[in-house]
Amino acid sequence: MLYHVKIEITLKPTVMDAQGTTMEKALHKMGHADVQNVRIGKFVTMEVEAKCTSCARSAAEAMCKELLANPIIEQFEVHVVEAETECVA
Amino acid sequence: MLYHVKIEITLKPTVMDAQGTTMEKALHKMGHADVQNVRIGKFVTMEVEAKCTSCARSAAEAMCKELLANPIIEQFEVHVVEAETECVA
Repeated sequence: MLYHVKIEITLKPTVMDAQGTTMEKALHKMGHADVQNVRIGKFVTMEVEAKCTSCARSAAEAMCKELLANPIIEQFEVHVVEAETECVA
Repeated sequence: MLYHVKIEITLKPTVMDAQGTTMEKALHKMGHADVQNVRIGKFVTMEVEAKCTSCARSAAEAMCKELLANPIIEQFEVHVVEAETECVA
């Protein structure tokens, strides 16, 4: 079965987000003074062929640990949604 | 009022995602053969002080157009949630 997987990767809350801080300063300089706590993250979307939702989740978590995220400074969250199957009637 | 704003920025579907393609190839080489359509995006979280939800949304959209996103190749989506107010009782 095909699953849509979305993985959100962020810096751990205790890690300083230099990119976010720079962006916040730039926004303030541009007149957006009411903005604070700007933080940046990345996400990866993919389609995974798996037997069940938890298999797809396990596969995605393995990918994160092996390649996508840096476990020392980053944390990740996996969201799995079953893809709509085509009508074959 | 304080709002939590999350902005998701992705390449437009018609733009080739070289980083995603590279990641997909790497995952295949590492044994994750059941993965396809890998695409990468980024998100920005921030707190915005605004009068109302739609004001916060407008401010976030303006920030995207001015600084955060590249309108030629990227598209963005803004999600606004009211921050929980502290109990002053």
